[in-house]
Amino acid sequence: MKATGIVVEYNPLHNGHVYHAQQAKKVTGSDIIIAVMSGNFLQRGEPAFVDKWTRTKMALATGVDLLFELPYRYATGHAPVFAEGAIRLLDAAGCTAFCFGSEEGDIGVFKQSLKNIDSSRDTYEFTVKQAIQEGTSYPKALNKAYETIRERGLGGADLSKPNNILGFHYMQAAMTIGSDIMPSTIQRLGADYHKDSLELGEIASATGIRKSYFSTSSLKEVMDFVPATTGELLDEWQEAGLKFGNWESFYPYLRFIILREGPEKLAHIADITEGIENLIYKAAKDHSSYQPFMETVKSKRYTWTRIQRMLTHILTGFTYNMRDSMHTPSYLRLLGMTNEGRAYLNEKKKSLHLPLISKAASFSDPSLDMDIHASSIYALATGQMTGLDYTTSPIIGNHFSSNSFK
Amino acid sequence: MKATGIVVEYNPLHNGHVYHAQQAKKVTGSDIIIAVMSGNFLQRGEPAFVDKWTRTKMALATGVDLLFELPYRYATGHAPVFAEGAIRLLDAAGCTAFCFGSEEGDIGVFKQSLKNIDSSRDTYEFTVKQAIQEGTSYPKALNKAYETIRERGLGGADLSKPNNILGFHYMQAAMTIGSDIMPSTIQRLGADYHKDSLELGEIASATGIRKSYFSTSSLKEVMDFVPATTGELLDEWQEAGLKFGNWESFYPYLRFIILREGPEKLAHIADITEGIENLIYKAAKDHSSYQPFMETVKSKRYTWTRIQRMLTHILTGFTYNMRDSMHTPSYLRLLGMTNEGRAYLNEKKKSLHLPLISKAASFSDPSLDMDIHASSIYALATGQMTGLDYTTSPIIGNHFSSNSFK
Repeated sequence: MKATGIVVEYNPLHNGHVYHAQQAKKVTGSDIIIAVMSGNFLQRGEPAFVDKWTRTKMALATGVDLLFELPYRYATGHAPVFAEGAIRLLDAAGCTAFCFGSEEGDIGVFKQSLKNIDSSRDTYEFTVKQAIQEGTSYPKALNKAYETIRERGLGGADLSKPNNILGFHYMQAAMTIGSDIMPSTIQRLGADYHKDSLELGEIASATGIRKSYFSTSSLKEVMDFVPATTGELLDEWQEAGLKFGNWESFYPYLRFIILREGPEKLAHIADITEGIENLIYKAAKDHSSYQPFMETVKSKRYTWTRIQRMLTHILTGFTYNMRDSMHTPSYLRLLGMTNEGRAYLNEKKKSLHLPLISKAASFSDPSLDMDIHASSIYALATGQMTGLDYTTSPIIGNHFSSNSFK
Repeated sequence: MKATGIVVEYNPLHNGHVYHAQQAKKVTGSDIIIAVMSGNFLQRGEPAFVDKWTRTKMALATGVDLLFELPYRYATGHAPVFAEGAIRLLDAAGCTAFCFGSEEGDIGVFKQSLKNIDSSRDTYEFTVKQAIQEGTSYPKALNKAYETIRERGLGGADLSKPNNILGFHYMQAAMTIGSDIMPSTIQRLGADYHKDSLELGEIASATGIRKSYFSTSSLKEVMDFVPATTGELLDEWQEAGLKFGNWESFYPYLRFIILREGPEKLAHIADITEGIENLIYKAAKDHSSYQPFMETVKSKRYTWTRIQRMLTHILTGFTYNMRDSMHTPSYLRLLGMTNEGRAYLNEKKKSLHLPLISKAASFSDPSLDMDIHASSIYALATGQMTGLDYTTSPIIGNHFSSNSFK
């Protein structure tokens, strides 16, 4: 059986994601789709809209056959770390291809980007370093360096676009780890695609969907943009009395922890650098809601996302020391599978490069401990029970119980 | 001017407290009453019903002339530590007498208690040690040892009664620090006293008053048992949308912090011993409200109060290391004064044994930092603004603004 890998967050899963999974299978001619998915905290340093089990159910209902959890350490890392963690897992799971959505939609220009940088590595690295010293944020510095090279007329992807950036890092990661996994890309659908020709329903970004919910406190407008199963699962989440995750609703806890810890202890938290702990501490003292707090902390040097990653680590207590104890991904944590996914696992289970974990209690690893810990922290703020990682079995096919996340 | 000291929590201040302050002044023939009062966390390891500024206003309106804050390190300590901190402050403030409420009501029997123990110190200490080794809680062990001696027919106070115990420790502390301060006691009024003869209104314990509020969510029944000013201040607190402090309302934060920290870090928190951190961690995972959580943690070895002190320290992040850095009380933090209190301070300010602090920002000390920190933590859970320690001036006389705690 041939498997193609995709890297997803599904926050929440919408019509555009269905298209991505279907196309990934089609263009690579694979038998199944394997997704590596973030857990309850995401790459932009945010709590997930709904938990990983619910998002697994969404995925299994709409084209993914096998889901593995991207460990917290990678899921909340910046693009190069996130991408390397994800590609290592897809490689370990035996994927022969991977397919990402991008603004470019042409794999050739990404290959050209890699070549450009490889042939001008010194210029590239020098420009990155210089830009950071001048106070530019890391993603902007990367992009500036890259543009300096691209201006030489060599072509390559536009790395100012968020999905292009991730795609580029996936490809770079595959090269770095020496994987044979074959890259491909499909163009992301914008809100302007011709919906009649695809029969997918309307397209909106996951960000737009979350915004719509949080500004109206209603799922009504969300429903046009998501598959039926996503809609049902979101309804169930709400009916169970659970909170949809965002920073506004997590902020009372974050604030409490910031004030309890104080700047000295905050300085040990991963990603906290250059005295920003003092600014965070002061802003938390002064502001009782999230938006004004963030506006106080935000500066030219740090992107909004980077600060949010710091806050995620403060919330979960993730220190530099803890991160340093976690090396490359060391397990494949199974979140769910369809019957096809199960058949694939049966066929490949002896050739997987990493141990397959279907019961959290059966494996001991600092990174897995952190995934479980992060779930509990998430659960407290959303109103779920703690310890779901121990009590939830991998979700099987479409036969999941709609009550299992209550 | 002659000053008599009292040690109070006023949680909240009720009719019985008014009687105590009035009688203390009368029986000692003093010009003013100085109170040492706990801040926002109390001796039984609980958040205060209302904050220290509000309780200061209650005190100034009903017989106290000068209030100093008992630092967190002592206010949340067990009886011997609490008593020593308080007596040291009263001594430093120049009190020539102190007066405590007790079940006994006769200072002679307390003096006899001190004599008894002094003359049988070896038996006493041996019995305490043995009882603790057998798994008895510390207060019960003290009492058992004391009763062993008292059975010899020497007389002495009944140290199974809570106010007798504190009184005994005040006297022991005065002896330990070599203070000349003169002890006296008055009998506490029970609910059965003849109210017509005293014109005080009805008597209930502070515990009973808080229970009445929390079981009805109404202040209506409370009003019979408290002076008018207390009633008005409680009303204002409620109208400002603030939460009355108790563990049920603080538990979401406590639970979050317990799960974030994990047993390993909890072991560094003051008063955590013998692996109880594991039990606390497990109980927090399992229980989403306070009462069942506590019932899981409670055992014969630890009193309810002792566990609550651990929880207070977990909430505020107060570690063994922090406590070890705080020695004897090193400042007199002024919370409020009447005109008489101010006159006293003017007369004595050069003879006080410790620096007088009326502005928190003007003094640097680990213990004061902790008092301020504890206030902020309290403020987050009750809904107050943080940093009130910096922005609130000592309350003067009865001319306080009724808005100053909003």
